[in-house]
Amino acid sequence: MLGLGTVGQAVLSALTDNQETIAQRAGGPLNVKRALILHPERHLGHANLITTQWQEILADDEIAIVVEVMGGMEPAFTYIRRALAAGKSVVTANKEVLANRGDELFAAAELSGRDLLFEASVGAGVPVIRAVKLGLAGNRVHQVCGILNGTTNFILTEMAQGMVDYQQALAKAQALGYAEADPAADVDGHDSARKIAILASIAFSSRVVEADVRCSGIAQVQAADLAWGSRLGWVLKPMARARLVAEGLEVASYPAWVGPGHPLAHVDGIMNAVSVRAEPLGEATFTGPGAGGPATASAVLGDLIEAARNLRLGGHAVGCTCYRQLAIFDPARAEDAFYLRLTVRPERTVVSQIAATLAEHRVGLRQTLQAAAADGRGEVVVVTETCRRGDLDRALAHLAQSPSVFTLRPPLVVEAQSA
Amino acid sequence: MLGLGTVGQAVLSALTDNQETIAQRAGGPLNVKRALILHPERHLGHANLITTQWQEILADDEIAIVVEVMGGMEPAFTYIRRALAAGKSVVTANKEVLANRGDELFAAAELSGRDLLFEASVGAGVPVIRAVKLGLAGNRVHQVCGILNGTTNFILTEMAQGMVDYQQALAKAQALGYAEADPAADVDGHDSARKIAILASIAFSSRVVEADVRCSGIAQVQAADLAWGSRLGWVLKPMARARLVAEGLEVASYPAWVGPGHPLAHVDGIMNAVSVRAEPLGEATFTGPGAGGPATASAVLGDLIEAARNLRLGGHAVGCTCYRQLAIFDPARAEDAFYLRLTVRPERTVVSQIAATLAEHRVGLRQTLQAAAADGRGEVVVVTETCRRGDLDRALAHLAQSPSVFTLRPPLVVEAQSA
Repeated sequence: MLGLGTVGQAVLSALTDNQETIAQRAGGPLNVKRALILHPERHLGHANLITTQWQEILADDEIAIVVEVMGGMEPAFTYIRRALAAGKSVVTANKEVLANRGDELFAAAELSGRDLLFEASVGAGVPVIRAVKLGLAGNRVHQVCGILNGTTNFILTEMAQGMVDYQQALAKAQALGYAEADPAADVDGHDSARKIAILASIAFSSRVVEADVRCSGIAQVQAADLAWGSRLGWVLKPMARARLVAEGLEVASYPAWVGPGHPLAHVDGIMNAVSVRAEPLGEATFTGPGAGGPATASAVLGDLIEAARNLRLGGHAVGCTCYRQLAIFDPARAEDAFYLRLTVRPERTVVSQIAATLAEHRVGLRQTLQAAAADGRGEVVVVTETCRRGDLDRALAHLAQSPSVFTLRPPLVVEAQSA
Repeated sequence: MLGLGTVGQAVLSALTDNQETIAQRAGGPLNVKRALILHPERHLGHANLITTQWQEILADDEIAIVVEVMGGMEPAFTYIRRALAAGKSVVTANKEVLANRGDELFAAAELSGRDLLFEASVGAGVPVIRAVKLGLAGNRVHQVCGILNGTTNFILTEMAQGMVDYQQALAKAQALGYAEADPAADVDGHDSARKIAILASIAFSSRVVEADVRCSGIAQVQAADLAWGSRLGWVLKPMARARLVAEGLEVASYPAWVGPGHPLAHVDGIMNAVSVRAEPLGEATFTGPGAGGPATASAVLGDLIEAARNLRLGGHAVGCTCYRQLAIFDPARAEDAFYLRLTVRPERTVVSQIAATLAEHRVGLRQTLQAAAADGRGEVVVVTETCRRGDLDRALAHLAQSPSVFTLRPPLVVEAQSA
């Protein structure tokens, strides 16, 4: 084992607690021989396992499977690559490594004939990698979307249910251990971006990397937005989506409004979910705990059992399934419906001015709502018809110049099924 | 292929439509050589494939995989067993065969070293067999519950949303092709019973057969029940559940009330879902289309690809995982909360009489509701605390004798999470 933090310790516990069932399913017992850690003084309970010397693990021929749960790009990437090259199978929970340099690792696994398994990298306990890679293997996928970050789902759920603001919700998430001291990777959408890159690569048989994912975070969302959403019958979710459009693959991580009929509408708190639309399947959704040591350990164990079984019985896990390379679609041409919130001069004509400016840029209106705001200002919420993001951005740049518009919040996507 | 009905035809179509992606994932193209049918005159479009002679398929060494989508116990069981014995891998959607004689088929597969795959037998397009068998393999499962029958979920959803009665909802299901002309296997709960037997066998590593499943149907449910449920904030779902209790495994198929926070509460119409509670996982839920040719074909194709890949690359699917044999728990000792509906003489003391009778049999009350019924009668709804089914049945037998009680509807289970 590389790393013995929350996930690593949960894996160790479950290997003991569920020893019998794991041995039966793995075709024999699984014994942890070494655990690589940075801070040996913190792990007095595992004195017989711990080492700070990676070479001890790499050089040990009795070690057939390496479980990487240390996270981060380096040294994790190098350790995984070298473990595979040394003929060990690897189980990893590391989305950063996979979403950026997955191709190199799959090539290494292919070359050595060993397994590289990574169920825990997306959705923690939700076994969605296997579902898409094997269960839906005969389908043509049209869209994969999901709530892939438990921290931001918790924050948005808190904001909606408690009507607290972003900072309060974040502080609560940190107090409960759901958010890091530095929450940037979660709240800026990068964690979801990595996970949707991994999922999209499998679903569309085409390598997608983190840099391909258009990314916007939740830090700009205000309690006022959630109150407006509630009036519209919507909830705001940290969405990650990959969909096939005529010109290629469009992949994004962003907060999105969903209506009560959307398959992700009831996925609250730290729960994660993934929804796949495919042919002949239709639509299926997988929901479960998206964070935490035990849930992640569940996924690691499933992979560990598969890797062990393959080594004992001579099979191989399915490797890289990126058989083609689709173009990544220009985000400016992406089509969505949007929610806009503006504070305006309280004039009778202001909504018609906004509508006219949007129309000039080919952006239609589905709905407008108005209310009095503080300081004698007015507040206007606009829901657009489906339009091109680039057209909307030009319309907004224009509106920002208008003397009737005081502030213009960043637009939020309204999912098609929310209507 | 054995059978060329809705599912078989959907499999054929997808094999053509998704030819390239399937060939890549299966390690080479999949060619359908023969399709066994009963009515050749109905399948003029597939003249090059169809045969009415099973022996032609069995004796053909070029046929490496048999896909059984004919359904029913015989001749399907014999065909599957003989195909395995002849060294062919088998993919089947047949829950009846698996839930009753699965052990014999797994033994035949084991003996010949071939794969027996059956993802389509439970939840149609929802890849739940693989999820539980592989993805959650390192867990100890506490409970599996699900909505496993699309027909009855459709009927109950219609009854709740349209407040139509059972016969009207059933007629609509039949008109839409969701229910058979003879709907008995669906509405009596036997179809769900077979599916939960299959799922429970995997989840608990212990063979469960259809006869082990306590079964009650939805034909007794009335529109009035759904109106009362709505007043209580509940929806009625065709539930199948297997849970581990101190004395063994309790497995049942029955209509159950669930509250809005239950993971299955929003699974409507013909959708199916399975929810698994396990350690270290927590709880995960898999949702998708639970009926129809295309959705079922999605599952068949995933299995077909796995079987083909294993034959080409020398691997083996995971076979029987029933490593132990748990006792089946006596249903009379099962503990649940229940909903009761009675028409009564409209006397002031009637609720206290009912409460006293229940209390005598160790059945506590959580809630009672009353309304005036037709003919000057009163109607009483009682929600009990968790109690033993056997105790409740004795209390009800006693109540049925009471001159104050005119009618007593069959009790309905209230799921624990519905409180």
